[in-house]
Amino acid sequence: MGDVAQRLAEIVGESHLLTGEAVGEDYAGDEALVGEARVPRYVAKPATAEEVAAILALATEHRVPVTARGSGTGLSGAARPRPDGILISFERMNSVLEVDTVNHVAVVQPGVTLSELDAKTAEAGLGYTVYPGEMSASVGGNVGTNAGGMRAVKYGVTRHNVLGLEAVLPTGEIIRTGGKVVKTSTGYDLTQLVIGSEGSLALATEVIVKLHPRLAHGSTVLAPFSDLDQVMAAVPAIVSSGLAPHILEYIDAFTMAAITYTAELSLGIPEEVREASQAYLVVGLENRDADRLDADVQSVGELLTELGATDVYVLEGGSARKLIEAREKAFWTAKAAGADDVIDVVVPRSAMPVFLARAREIAAKTESGIAGCGHAGDGNVHLGIFQKDPAKRASLLHDIFAEGMALGGAISGEHGIGRAKKEHFLELEDPAKIELMKRVKQAFDPAGILNPGVLFD
Amino acid sequence: MGDVAQRLAEIVGESHLLTGEAVGEDYAGDEALVGEARVPRYVAKPATAEEVAAILALATEHRVPVTARGSGTGLSGAARPRPDGILISFERMNSVLEVDTVNHVAVVQPGVTLSELDAKTAEAGLGYTVYPGEMSASVGGNVGTNAGGMRAVKYGVTRHNVLGLEAVLPTGEIIRTGGKVVKTSTGYDLTQLVIGSEGSLALATEVIVKLHPRLAHGSTVLAPFSDLDQVMAAVPAIVSSGLAPHILEYIDAFTMAAITYTAELSLGIPEEVREASQAYLVVGLENRDADRLDADVQSVGELLTELGATDVYVLEGGSARKLIEAREKAFWTAKAAGADDVIDVVVPRSAMPVFLARAREIAAKTESGIAGCGHAGDGNVHLGIFQKDPAKRASLLHDIFAEGMALGGAISGEHGIGRAKKEHFLELEDPAKIELMKRVKQAFDPAGILNPGVLFD
Ligand SMILES: Cc1cc2nc3c(=O)[nH]c(=O)nc-3n(C[C@H](O)[C@H](O)[C@H](O)COP(=O)(O)OP(=O)(O)OC[C@H]3O[C@@H](n4cnc5c(N)ncnc54)[C@H](O)[C@@H]3O)c2cc1C
Ligand SMILES: Cc1cc2nc3c(=O)[nH]c(=O)nc-3n(C[C@H](O)[C@H](O)[C@H](O)COP(=O)(O)OP(=O)(O)OC[C@H]3O[C@@H](n4cnc5c(N)ncnc54)[C@H](O)[C@@H]3O)c2cc1C
Repeated sequence: MGDVAQRLAEIVGESHLLTGEAVGEDYAGDEALVGEARVPRYVAKPATAEEVAAILALATEHRVPVTARGSGTGLSGAARPRPDGILISFERMNSVLEVDTVNHVAVVQPGVTLSELDAKTAEAGLGYTVYPGEMSASVGGNVGTNAGGMRAVKYGVTRHNVLGLEAVLPTGEIIRTGGKVVKTSTGYDLTQLVIGSEGSLALATEVIVKLHPRLAHGSTVLAPFSDLDQVMAAVPAIVSSGLAPHILEYIDAFTMAAITYTAELSLGIPEEVREASQAYLVVGLENRDADRLDADVQSVGELLTELGATDVYVLEGGSARKLIEAREKAFWTAKAAGADDVIDVVVPRSAMPVFLARAREIAAKTESGIAGCGHAGDGNVHLGIFQKDPAKRASLLHDIFAEGMALGGAISGEHGIGRAKKEHFLELEDPAKIELMKRVKQAFDPAGILNPGVLFD
Repeated sequence: MGDVAQRLAEIVGESHLLTGEAVGEDYAGDEALVGEARVPRYVAKPATAEEVAAILALATEHRVPVTARGSGTGLSGAARPRPDGILISFERMNSVLEVDTVNHVAVVQPGVTLSELDAKTAEAGLGYTVYPGEMSASVGGNVGTNAGGMRAVKYGVTRHNVLGLEAVLPTGEIIRTGGKVVKTSTGYDLTQLVIGSEGSLALATEVIVKLHPRLAHGSTVLAPFSDLDQVMAAVPAIVSSGLAPHILEYIDAFTMAAITYTAELSLGIPEEVREASQAYLVVGLENRDADRLDADVQSVGELLTELGATDVYVLEGGSARKLIEAREKAFWTAKAAGADDVIDVVVPRSAMPVFLARAREIAAKTESGIAGCGHAGDGNVHLGIFQKDPAKRASLLHDIFAEGMALGGAISGEHGIGRAKKEHFLELEDPAKIELMKRVKQAFDPAGILNPGVLFD
């Protein structure tokens, strides 16, 4: 293995390789609440696709596990390295190579953070619309997890916003997929296959992302409901209305209390309304035209009232921003409140009321707590799980995931399976699909070096 | 092989199996202008996924090639069977199983035609927005080719409008991918991998498609330009405007003359304007609100004038519909005019002027004719190729495809590679990608029974 260290140093340069004691805890994991963080044997910080290719070829030759890391903000343990492996940190490959205002795309290196990209594209009046709550996340990490976030209800998830990749295969070849084009029918879609593969098929060394015009006018509407089922039933009606909100979130009363408390945020909702509310809907609207926005805000307000909202608040700029930020930080609030896990089942929008009702029953059976919020417009329910006992928690999660799948949904809408949910994925998913996915993995990665232990055993 | 016929008859029922003389020319090919149509040995018409599974298991056991056929309207020869093989025709699996107005999806069998689905969804005020010019095409065929069409500029192509599949693997397993959910991060995206694979990885036996609300108000604007480059330069400007047209087509003067002549359509454009025009832009706008539509039509008209249009016509309902229909039939017009091939290179929108200029130079070198129209908003250029000599045509196509790829595009935007463009695909595409795709194919189809000769040799 001395040989591996030696060759890694030759590839990335000695100052960009950490080994042994020099590898800090920072590289030991991501933000998943479960599982053990593990310090890798090597941390390599390549600067080019060619260096990444050389590392992967070396790893394939020596059968050394390799884990890619963006910013380590993932919630599924997928950036958690193997103790005997190499962690490739993309922190040095962090340039926005091009903001193309004619084709409305940006070409970026994978280590670019969302906040950097946001700043660069803002100058051109454009934006990359994948907004997971965490702006320190990297574009490469978005590709790995197929990240979503609040604006997916209008703009789609990472999958819908990545047009092409430069990617390195585990065997060391550098390929280019897709491009600055919005569609192709020219062989299998390798871009889409790599997206969401959690660093197990190929590593992205360049990403071509779609940009959308930033619309000049925006507004945020908040509606309390006395009944959670009504909130859930309101969601498809708003999606169908044609008003095309770019944010459509639900927040349960417990979570609303926690996040506004943490953010020291007062929304001006009278106490008696708050006390009578089981949940809230947050609806964000945007338009290039101020009058159209006003008319749409009016329509959404009327629609919410029809759908049973006890009141409708159009939030001022400052408190709107703070509420969205507090919602984005819901994960930290759940963590601070002692949540033992956070999950993000996705179900058909129409199934959300049933799913939440069943999840509450399942939780009650094991005397566990669940509370949450979610990308309601996507049918994506984020639940904090409060249950200290690992066996009880495993059984609770198994039952909730099975319920989501029985309703036509999937274990994860945007966080991924990683290491954290692998056991349930392998148990609940159709074995024919698991076997097929393993053969696809084998087609990319014959030596099995890329992120072993993630998705599959 | 008598054994195979016997078993096929047991699977689908004798009356749903054709062999020998009974197999008509109808099953021998699709609409590709090049290559030989070939009558298959067997035509099987299954009624269920289980029957499809039994056929594929049988084919894998006996190493018999299998080609899936929807409506045979494809333009790449991908539904052209092998003379020693089985053609699976999905004509009996043609039901719309569900129009789900809450989740905005339809669940359909693959043999459903676009016109049937359009009629069924219209009742609910919804629609499947993939509109290739040919409404007799099937949804299964759309999945096979990743079909696009005029509305892709706003709604995306098949890939963006299919949420889930029931699919049969060549080895006979029936799997379900995705669902009535808008996103998942739960293992590799098998839905996306099957879409656009031209019947070579798995066969879809059920498709969950997205539906969009039909907007009440629509308008079509036609703008002649004296200069083709100006048309091309106008396209990104219109896309950037935020007016979000659902149609953005260019039609060159030759093609406009041909399609309006064929359709006996008079657009009321004075002769001197027509004579001075090199090309036209067609811009379709739609809105749920009549006043907003009017304002947007106004804005688009002003924008087109700024961008150099010599005139702007807002077409009346009747002639608008006829022009769109004539444009949809451009393929038949090109065929009637004696076109020897039709191609659909896609390039970044900004590269369209350069691409077209180079394509004209390349054509001139071999004294070939090219003329066309295209989904300009997608950078997708449809060109009729007029060159009788096969060797000259092959060299011309090679050069045009190479040019499109050099500009960052791909050989096909929506028609696919099939048999028609395979030779160029295999020659021009990166060998590392071809090898990877072949290994993926192997992962799905170890016996190599699904559509051999399509995409790969
Ligand atoms: C407070 C908070 C809120 C969040 N909210 C959301 C949310 O709303 N929606 C959402 O989707 N997520 C959310 N997340 C999760 C996280 O931000 C996303 O998963 C993000 O995409 C991870 O990016 P990262 O750079 O941190 O990736 P990492 O955690 O470093 O890696 C994630 C995965 O991507 C792989 N990977 C990294 N780089 C590459 C590369 N170059 N090529 C291939 N694979 C690579 C890794 O191997 C790993 O499998 C949230 C996280 C936090 C902490
Ligand atoms: C006049 C005209 C205009 C056209 N305009 C357009 C256009 O604007 N945009 C566009 O994209 N196309 C266009 N086309 C091409 C064609 O309509 C599309 O390719 C369409 O998707 C083909 O559907 P089909 O049912 O006829 O498929 P087929 O030709 O029968 O098959 C196409 C492919 O799909 C596979 N396939 C069929 N069924 C299944 C299944 N159930 N599971 C898996 N694979 C399957 C076949 O094996 C084959 O590879 C046009 C064609 C014509 C004739």
